[in-house]
Amino acid sequence: MRSDIIVQKYGGSSVADPERIRNVARRVSAAYERRSPRIVVVVSAMGKTTDQLIALAHQITPHPDPRELDLLLSTGEIVSIALLAMALRDLGHEAISLTGYQAGIRTESRYGAARILDVDPMRIRRELERGRIVIVAGFQGFTEEFDVTTLGRGGSDTTAVALAAALEASACEIYTDVDGVFTADPRIVPEARQLQDISYEEMLELASQGAKVMAARAVELGELFDQPILVASSFSDRPGTLIHRGVSMEKGNKVRGIAHDVNVGKVTIVGVPDRPGIAAQVFGPLAEAGISVDVIVQNTGQHGKTDLSYSVAKGDLSKAEALTREVAKAIGAEAVTTAGDLGKVSIVGSGMQSAPGYAARMFEALYRAGINIEMITTSEIRITCIVAADRVPDAVRSLHAAFELETRDNP
Amino acid sequence: MRSDIIVQKYGGSSVADPERIRNVARRVSAAYERRSPRIVVVVSAMGKTTDQLIALAHQITPHPDPRELDLLLSTGEIVSIALLAMALRDLGHEAISLTGYQAGIRTESRYGAARILDVDPMRIRRELERGRIVIVAGFQGFTEEFDVTTLGRGGSDTTAVALAAALEASACEIYTDVDGVFTADPRIVPEARQLQDISYEEMLELASQGAKVMAARAVELGELFDQPILVASSFSDRPGTLIHRGVSMEKGNKVRGIAHDVNVGKVTIVGVPDRPGIAAQVFGPLAEAGISVDVIVQNTGQHGKTDLSYSVAKGDLSKAEALTREVAKAIGAEAVTTAGDLGKVSIVGSGMQSAPGYAARMFEALYRAGINIEMITTSEIRITCIVAADRVPDAVRSLHAAFELETRDNP
Repeated sequence: MRSDIIVQKYGGSSVADPERIRNVARRVSAAYERRSPRIVVVVSAMGKTTDQLIALAHQITPHPDPRELDLLLSTGEIVSIALLAMALRDLGHEAISLTGYQAGIRTESRYGAARILDVDPMRIRRELERGRIVIVAGFQGFTEEFDVTTLGRGGSDTTAVALAAALEASACEIYTDVDGVFTADPRIVPEARQLQDISYEEMLELASQGAKVMAARAVELGELFDQPILVASSFSDRPGTLIHRGVSMEKGNKVRGIAHDVNVGKVTIVGVPDRPGIAAQVFGPLAEAGISVDVIVQNTGQHGKTDLSYSVAKGDLSKAEALTREVAKAIGAEAVTTAGDLGKVSIVGSGMQSAPGYAARMFEALYRAGINIEMITTSEIRITCIVAADRVPDAVRSLHAAFELETRDNP
Repeated sequence: MRSDIIVQKYGGSSVADPERIRNVARRVSAAYERRSPRIVVVVSAMGKTTDQLIALAHQITPHPDPRELDLLLSTGEIVSIALLAMALRDLGHEAISLTGYQAGIRTESRYGAARILDVDPMRIRRELERGRIVIVAGFQGFTEEFDVTTLGRGGSDTTAVALAAALEASACEIYTDVDGVFTADPRIVPEARQLQDISYEEMLELASQGAKVMAARAVELGELFDQPILVASSFSDRPGTLIHRGVSMEKGNKVRGIAHDVNVGKVTIVGVPDRPGIAAQVFGPLAEAGISVDVIVQNTGQHGKTDLSYSVAKGDLSKAEALTREVAKAIGAEAVTTAGDLGKVSIVGSGMQSAPGYAARMFEALYRAGINIEMITTSEIRITCIVAADRVPDAVRSLHAAFELETRDNP
């Protein structure tokens, strides 16, 4: 049984200046008047504040101490919460701001990327009982030693979902500068439709594939606690997209959206001896260097030799190439080639795996558009093709049309 | 028995930019290497940060909530401590920053001007035992409810003295942008000498009369705990001025310095009926309006009437005049006149009261310089004359010469 508490989160662009902060205050005030007197608001730092603080730290030292950097960065959100509380009081509301510590957000002591261990919402509940609107600093928590941590990028989304779960909130609303989640990037596909709802898994695939609407870890946390999350714009009154459990699992069109990414690099080791342990030798050093490998394809070849290709983020390509050249030499491969001008396009939808024909339809659409597929990878709810970066927009448009995403009713 | 702990405080101008923060780090590092490995450093917000944050709050609302304003302002010092700790680590030291809360600085909940109730230095001691240089945010504390407070202007000096007292520090050093306490303002009297030492009381009189070297409340706290305080420059290696107990009480020249102020306004009520209760009627409304009255002079007149004059800060003059006109009407006084172009000049020195002749020598010097005295007031260690504002520099110079402050050896 959920409470009547509403958790709202406003991102950095929504509180970028005093005028926008007053706008957020008016939105919170309206929700208080019309929907529920028990509102918790999570805010990020104003605009580019976090980046500016990082730049300031780098004026002191090229390698800022992680604990001190976290304390420094935490001030960005504290400025936002104090200003928003002032703005709400200016509208006649009782409002109170709470830092991560005051809000009881306990984390690991892994500075810069701390995970939330638990939330003790005692103070928040006490302030709500006093009739106050509670403003909580996103992105920050505290350790056992009462030191300040930050949660890493996307941390404010995570704060909001964690608080919603701890308070058993009836709604968790992430307000940002987009209207919600779309069937594809509207800048590429003007006919792209906004989705009314989407499952956690679909959202994760769309987000990790390039639809950067909200942080993946926050969606995962929502899934873990079965906490529905609404993503909507803080600049309009459009309804947004609800992320929740099990939507569209068995009904209608299984493809919900098209995700894409244009920063993909590929490394191919040509003429790899076909013997056990090769893959471990190739990918071990990449893992140690912190390089995240996305797609791996191995073609069985002739004469006991094979070609092995993998894709990485474009920024990691030269480092990955250097490491792989060393390994190629050691294992007696013939050559290493790279390509840095690739992109990927994915169709995403729950239940795709159990309904055949989606892959074929995808390949057919790309073929008709004259787009060559470099690599293919699939998950339970996604099929991804690596293609030339300059063909990605065409690929997105053809797939959006092929799966009739612009015309189908939203399930 | 005092410990080997050194407390140093660096003001806003000493940490105004990254280069200056690195300079402070080098100074702290030198003290650590040469003097004591147990150092606690208190810092203010960088440069004009506090003023900028106040301006930001006023962009939200003309009347920021005091609790929220304190939380907002506290971020200024947090930025400084994090950056200084990074700079010290960059020099190879173990350093750790602590907020007011982490440093155990418990205060009243009177936001904007909270007084320190007590300091629990447990965390500071623990970090010192680990061999770390401890950097503490000045100007801030926390309440019983774990809310953040600020101590008001001069709060960082107060933090430093409070920590020194709680830690029984062997030294409390306030580093600022002046070399120490001088016999007079060197911009007015080029021959002014720096004092090697000065008593708490003398320092209080000099500071409150215009020699704005450090906050009066910090000096009072030092006196209360008998904590010697060194005031010195963070931009040079000159020795500074030591504020401590009972110096020069019985020896040498009793006049230690000349203080001055050029922002004085005077209100005179002419023809006041000479009957009991008049003073209360005049000064009650001023106190209620928060106007601080400095000098009060009443001349007994003829025919049962008297003239009553008082001085206030120039900024309060028009408000004081309005209030006094009302009262004058009510009590049947003849007229109210004001003067806004006044200043004051004081001679300060312990033991003056017990050694006659100082007042006469002061009046003689001003007379010789052709300076008219408007009002006179005295305390145990100070004689103050109100004069025309444009004559204040001449007055300071004549008094400095008359008491031979440029030639006397420092006692």
